[in-house]
Amino acid sequence: MIVSTSIAKIAQLLGLPFHGDGSLQIQRISSWEDADQASLIYYERSSKDRQLPDDLPAGCIITSAELHRSCWNTIVSRQPKLDFARAADILHHGPVGQGVHHPTAEVSPKATIGKHVDLGPQVVIGPGAQIGDNSILHAGVVISQDCLIGKDCLLYPRVILYKGVKLGNRVILHAGVVLGADGFGYVFDGTSHIKFPQAGTLVVEDDVEIGANTTVDRGSLGTTRIGKRSKIDNLVQIAHNTQIGCDVIIASQTGISGSAVIEDEVIIAGQVGFGDHIRVKKGAIIGGQAGVLPGKVLPGNEVYWGTPARPLREFKRSYAHLARLPEMRSELKQLKQKLKLFRKELKNLASDD
Amino acid sequence: MIVSTSIAKIAQLLGLPFHGDGSLQIQRISSWEDADQASLIYYERSSKDRQLPDDLPAGCIITSAELHRSCWNTIVSRQPKLDFARAADILHHGPVGQGVHHPTAEVSPKATIGKHVDLGPQVVIGPGAQIGDNSILHAGVVISQDCLIGKDCLLYPRVILYKGVKLGNRVILHAGVVLGADGFGYVFDGTSHIKFPQAGTLVVEDDVEIGANTTVDRGSLGTTRIGKRSKIDNLVQIAHNTQIGCDVIIASQTGISGSAVIEDEVIIAGQVGFGDHIRVKKGAIIGGQAGVLPGKVLPGNEVYWGTPARPLREFKRSYAHLARLPEMRSELKQLKQKLKLFRKELKNLASDD
Amino acid sequence: MIVSTSIAKIAQLLGLPFHGDGSLQIQRISSWEDADQASLIYYERSSKDRQLPDDLPAGCIITSAELHRSCWNTIVSRQPKLDFARAADILHHGPVGQGVHHPTAEVSPKATIGKHVDLGPQVVIGPGAQIGDNSILHAGVVISQDCLIGKDCLLYPRVILYKGVKLGNRVILHAGVVLGADGFGYVFDGTSHIKFPQAGTLVVEDDVEIGANTTVDRGSLGTTRIGKRSKIDNLVQIAHNTQIGCDVIIASQTGISGSAVIEDEVIIAGQVGFGDHIRVKKGAIIGGQAGVLPGKVLPGNEVYWGTPARPLREFKRSYAHLARLPEMRSELKQLKQKLKLFRKELKNLASDD
Repeated sequence: MIVSTSIAKIAQLLGLPFHGDGSLQIQRISSWEDADQASLIYYERSSKDRQLPDDLPAGCIITSAELHRSCWNTIVSRQPKLDFARAADILHHGPVGQGVHHPTAEVSPKATIGKHVDLGPQVVIGPGAQIGDNSILHAGVVISQDCLIGKDCLLYPRVILYKGVKLGNRVILHAGVVLGADGFGYVFDGTSHIKFPQAGTLVVEDDVEIGANTTVDRGSLGTTRIGKRSKIDNLVQIAHNTQIGCDVIIASQTGISGSAVIEDEVIIAGQVGFGDHIRVKKGAIIGGQAGVLPGKVLPGNEVYWGTPARPLREFKRSYAHLARLPEMRSELKQLKQKLKLFRKELKNLASDD
Repeated sequence: MIVSTSIAKIAQLLGLPFHGDGSLQIQRISSWEDADQASLIYYERSSKDRQLPDDLPAGCIITSAELHRSCWNTIVSRQPKLDFARAADILHHGPVGQGVHHPTAEVSPKATIGKHVDLGPQVVIGPGAQIGDNSILHAGVVISQDCLIGKDCLLYPRVILYKGVKLGNRVILHAGVVLGADGFGYVFDGTSHIKFPQAGTLVVEDDVEIGANTTVDRGSLGTTRIGKRSKIDNLVQIAHNTQIGCDVIIASQTGISGSAVIEDEVIIAGQVGFGDHIRVKKGAIIGGQAGVLPGKVLPGNEVYWGTPARPLREFKRSYAHLARLPEMRSELKQLKQKLKLFRKELKNLASDD
Repeated sequence: MIVSTSIAKIAQLLGLPFHGDGSLQIQRISSWEDADQASLIYYERSSKDRQLPDDLPAGCIITSAELHRSCWNTIVSRQPKLDFARAADILHHGPVGQGVHHPTAEVSPKATIGKHVDLGPQVVIGPGAQIGDNSILHAGVVISQDCLIGKDCLLYPRVILYKGVKLGNRVILHAGVVLGADGFGYVFDGTSHIKFPQAGTLVVEDDVEIGANTTVDRGSLGTTRIGKRSKIDNLVQIAHNTQIGCDVIIASQTGISGSAVIEDEVIIAGQVGFGDHIRVKKGAIIGGQAGVLPGKVLPGNEVYWGTPARPLREFKRSYAHLARLPEMRSELKQLKQKLKLFRKELKNLASDD
């Protein structure tokens, strides 16, 4: 839904000053390339270098005071990108549940559906499930029995929740997400692998967002948990009994094994692998493709890199050593030759005696 | 489904002795934290260290003889975790097909559906498909034409089988699994990539379990095969014509390229990558994030690590060499300085002459 | 659909000469193992070594002139595998839309559906969407509002397109593909991560094929783009604003971060990771599990390997250095011992003085 808002109003809602025509109506945020006179754009020093034109290609720009030009409509910000994101929230209200239940949605008579909940075509809701007010479930979402969905949640098509999964409020799940499937646990009986019970559950707390086709398994006996405000990218795997803290960032294709603990405010890049029973302490940053061996504890507020993961400083040092290997090798050769020469001289001296 | 079973009965079915009140009714397996008097728990030495209390928080425990306390109800086992998994099977019977076909299930008149098969909402079954007795197909499962599903299979929501895929008995497929999609095969004609035919098939044998959103491609001309009792985790990729043996374990996010052979009882950790036409021999173990180059053959009963994958012993050795690089470098420096000194002394000696 | 075609006709359509009975009817392409007298097979030097029998197990073979035997029906080719792929296209016409709309397909009255479009059970098509002639949408495909689908597209079950995604002609999307989900973009406000708007779009050009459960995100403000004839395998992740050129090959489980540029004719193996804002120039080849650090530019027509990715030659050189580490270490030891000896001799000489 797009609404029209004046520059003055946007600036006021952001708590920021503006220059220029405050009455101009803005309808959307845009890239510089796609902008028109109803667009809001932004620029900050860290953005890609561009020639700043006197004629703004947009109705309004959010940028810093020193970049403002006299003929622009400018909302002045110290954090243009952040305030642009906030402005986007003002201009593009997220979708709001209207209370529309598609006739092909299959809702158990034993389920409880809140007010203003939208259920798309072919949504399936099992007995005992509860859906909080204003939540939107797109086409083909499957909510199994006894699941609890909070308020203002947004579930994209074909999201699947196994039995008993709990979501907080304002959770966003992208298409194809699978929550609460059985963990990968077997006990070897000497001949074959016997399935260990996967009878626990999964709790996803408030304001979590999970990317397309990501999978998070239920606990085997206890609970798998994703803490408040954590953001998880596409195609991530989180195994049974793992505990993800609050405000954690996990990029695409990372895999976290069973019973791992990722503490608050950890940032994890793409394709990282974590062995089981690891712990990453608060505020650690893990570089792309790093590998953390089973059982390891990584201290917080430190950047890690490589497999096995080490503090970046260490990694760089040993990487530098590696880079010097050819040099070391030629030095070694020179030393050997010098020694030969010396041996000769030494012999000569000795025979001189 | 939960049934109530006496401790004596459970012990008898497991073929194990017990101490305490054999008539107490047990309803479920639990973690220590969630247990009550109707719960069965377990403890073994390798479990996380815990203070063993005199008052058991559960109705019954499976543990070893030497850990038993006089006031406990104990089923005595040498393999508590394994027997706990077996007990879980006794207490929590898996779901059993009831013969319920949801009215929105779309079944081709040319398909054959066995006895006691459950078809969830929006299940689609194509012509020529056969579904074995007691199998359960959850909401939105798609079984394309000419697929063969064995008995007692359990397919979670939105599982998709392409044309002609064959499943054995007691196969479990988790939500979002895609079986039998086209392999990734092209022939370059000098200008662009021409699709090579993907006209083969895929066979998944008895007692295989496959995790959420995992993909297994059909053969290009021949057959892709997953052997009996093999277990595959979430988000794994198995390419066309690959042969997976029996009792193989494959952890999350591992990728196996085309025409690979993984022999029986191989164990593969997470995020491992296998090039095409590789062979991993019986009983090999491959560590997390390892990479096996195309065409390689890895001998069996050996642990492998790293990229390119080497026996763990070798890997450790070269890793130790790496760790000594800084030391080597300073030794090299010292040697150079010593040589300089010697040269001086040598010169002095020579000039003394 | 299988049609029967004479050897002479196939040869003529391929523009190739043949030997033997040109009137024999061929119905299918086969592997050697599955072949019968209605089968076409192929053999080329690079195929796995096999004993070539006098009695062909198939009705016809495509192979090179020098491998032909007098009693075979042979279509003579310099590129047997390529011509076999072309013959497959002649024998196995791909599926063709029949104009069948399943009664459970939910089509918005504001959508535009072309001629001969097939809509499977539970397909959902939103308002403003357009589906080109002859396209086939299998069970449960979701086309959100304002999407544009070209002609002759083939969408397998449960493919999901978010709002406004555009597909060219002859695009193939395998089951579980998610196109146009929100990119993974947040701005940190000092306390928590604020969602950056994901208001851009995604364009997939003509003749692209995308594998099962792969995810491609929409642009945050601009456009994510997959160029003509590019082929993408299963479980690949392509992030927001990324530009993939034409004729690019991307194997399974590779991840490409935001705002990356992959130029034409690049070939990427499995499990490769690309940081954001990278550029891979035309014709580069990236080996399996390689890692390209954020912001890097890789020159074209070069093979890259490892993390961080380097030209293969360099990688091999430093790998060779690594392999010589144990040798270097023992040389270092020997040098130290020799020096000790020299010091002794030197002292003796000096004291002799």
